[in-house]
Amino acid sequence: MGLMNQYIRQSVDRMTGYVPGEQPLDKDIVKLNTNENPYPPSPHVQAVLQQVATNALRYYPDPVCKRLRDRLADIHACLPDQIIVGNGSDELLALCIRAFVERESSVGFFEPSYSLYLVLADIEGVTANPVPLDADFQWKMPEDYVSSLFFLCNPNAPTSILYPQEMVEDFCERFSGVVVMDEAYVDFSEKDCMHLARSKENVLVARTLSKSFSLANIRLGYLVGPLPLIQALYKIKDSYNVNGLTQDIALAAVSDLDHMRSNVETIKSTRKRVARALRDQGFYVFPSETNFLWVKPPQSSAQKLFTALRNKRILVRHFPGEQTGAFLRVTIGTDQEVDVFLEGVIGSI
Amino acid sequence: MGLMNQYIRQSVDRMTGYVPGEQPLDKDIVKLNTNENPYPPSPHVQAVLQQVATNALRYYPDPVCKRLRDRLADIHACLPDQIIVGNGSDELLALCIRAFVERESSVGFFEPSYSLYLVLADIEGVTANPVPLDADFQWKMPEDYVSSLFFLCNPNAPTSILYPQEMVEDFCERFSGVVVMDEAYVDFSEKDCMHLARSKENVLVARTLSKSFSLANIRLGYLVGPLPLIQALYKIKDSYNVNGLTQDIALAAVSDLDHMRSNVETIKSTRKRVARALRDQGFYVFPSETNFLWVKPPQSSAQKLFTALRNKRILVRHFPGEQTGAFLRVTIGTDQEVDVFLEGVIGSI
Repeated sequence: MGLMNQYIRQSVDRMTGYVPGEQPLDKDIVKLNTNENPYPPSPHVQAVLQQVATNALRYYPDPVCKRLRDRLADIHACLPDQIIVGNGSDELLALCIRAFVERESSVGFFEPSYSLYLVLADIEGVTANPVPLDADFQWKMPEDYVSSLFFLCNPNAPTSILYPQEMVEDFCERFSGVVVMDEAYVDFSEKDCMHLARSKENVLVARTLSKSFSLANIRLGYLVGPLPLIQALYKIKDSYNVNGLTQDIALAAVSDLDHMRSNVETIKSTRKRVARALRDQGFYVFPSETNFLWVKPPQSSAQKLFTALRNKRILVRHFPGEQTGAFLRVTIGTDQEVDVFLEGVIGSI
Repeated sequence: MGLMNQYIRQSVDRMTGYVPGEQPLDKDIVKLNTNENPYPPSPHVQAVLQQVATNALRYYPDPVCKRLRDRLADIHACLPDQIIVGNGSDELLALCIRAFVERESSVGFFEPSYSLYLVLADIEGVTANPVPLDADFQWKMPEDYVSSLFFLCNPNAPTSILYPQEMVEDFCERFSGVVVMDEAYVDFSEKDCMHLARSKENVLVARTLSKSFSLANIRLGYLVGPLPLIQALYKIKDSYNVNGLTQDIALAAVSDLDHMRSNVETIKSTRKRVARALRDQGFYVFPSETNFLWVKPPQSSAQKLFTALRNKRILVRHFPGEQTGAFLRVTIGTDQEVDVFLEGVIGSI
């Protein structure tokens, strides 16, 4: 259009939306670009789907996901009322800006980090107050840093690095606003910070079933934290925000932690193997605590390698830009998938 | 808590959220309180669920619901790009405020109408600019009315009344903002206004699969309208806002319009019978173009009748307040359910 549209809010008219990783409809591709889990979810999920009475689909779902929260509360040793469930954790991150950031205030996050955070700030029309990471993607907080909300992605994406618990706890204590710890990848890490959601009045921890539980398709995320913050989020969520099938499937999945942990162990072992193979090829590989690797190719540019792999029907993720343009993010797939990837790499550099 | 919480946005701390109709976990109840469909969805939905490969659940869903939109575009004689699909139409209504209402501006709707509209305005912190209906719930627009967005619920809820096409079209032409026509109940009506979404630059029509398609549980709504407005909404939606199972189920359901229409005809015929029976008992029954009736009991107060029915395990909806307190909203159920309801009424007034 070019011209402003009289009906559209100016800030929205100006912005560009979040661009998710490619989801090719063609499945005949080695897809290591969106951090999906290469292994199927718990077999209990199949059982749930076989048992759905379609007649029950005519009812509205439980608006507050009671049964699922009871189970999650057991897992995380908190009260069910300290949990809010969302249509993916994306929904909950957006709600956090609406609940905790006054309009004249700002929201913080690492740069680079999950690129959605900036988009969410734009959508809500609040100021983004990013904290640039150093050249090694290490975190040093500016002395005088102030914001109403900080999205602390830990382990961070796309860099795969886990920041230490003590550093995180220290930050939470000194920060004057709400800290949302985005632990989307934490099941692949050695340590997590859930204890801070139980003990600090300003800390929420976000989890998702999209990665370790192999359930990106059903959209299920949740936040754990202090009652007053969780209650504020309940006030502003869509009334029936999580569909009933998703609630049933999620309950089955989180009731089978053994299955998840076994998949996670397999992925971690593959991660180790791929990291070693890439280092052997001269890549710089960051120490990953996630289900992906953040790597710097030796001679050829990351962009060139990305394209060469793509031509071989191998999808990884490249984030153009000064800070991230020299790197690739590679999701850990099955043994077969990563072997195709490694062969593709060797033939391309 | 009493005191303001330092972490929570003031407008959120002050507000109370939307209160959805009761969803008793106990199903041994005649549930005529939330406008659900008493008949099951298309048998094709069962087939979809039987065929789900749980391994596919590990992938993110199509972020833009392409296959579903192609089918909906056929049905509504528009381009697929003129459609955006949401996690229930509630999500889309909220997006409309974020996309079309500047912060110093306001959003309009009838009073009474779907009570979520006011909550959405509160959440976004924009001014609500309601248009009071007269004592018969008829619509007369104030001469100098201005707003950025108007939620025109037609047929209106909880009043069940359909406003004429000419009146609606005339309003859309004179109104300087965006009109979101909420046609949640329109499959139960004689006429709809989808043609305005295809012809007017400021009109969006919202539809849902929750009522006529018997799929409240899966959360699926969509908007049809002019490209520039739809594009603005795409920019600000959650990236993967509709889960994959919901997309598959919805596609099956909208590909079986005959099943939906047959259920709708049955409900309309039951509606006629219940309306007549209530009039015989001295109720005032508004002419309904929805799957519910808006009725005024003869002698006993609506509140008293609501409670008497509730004690007999029959749930209907009562909205306290000056405008609505004298009425009840009764969802049309199966023949058996409405017979229990009618007996309950006769034993209570």
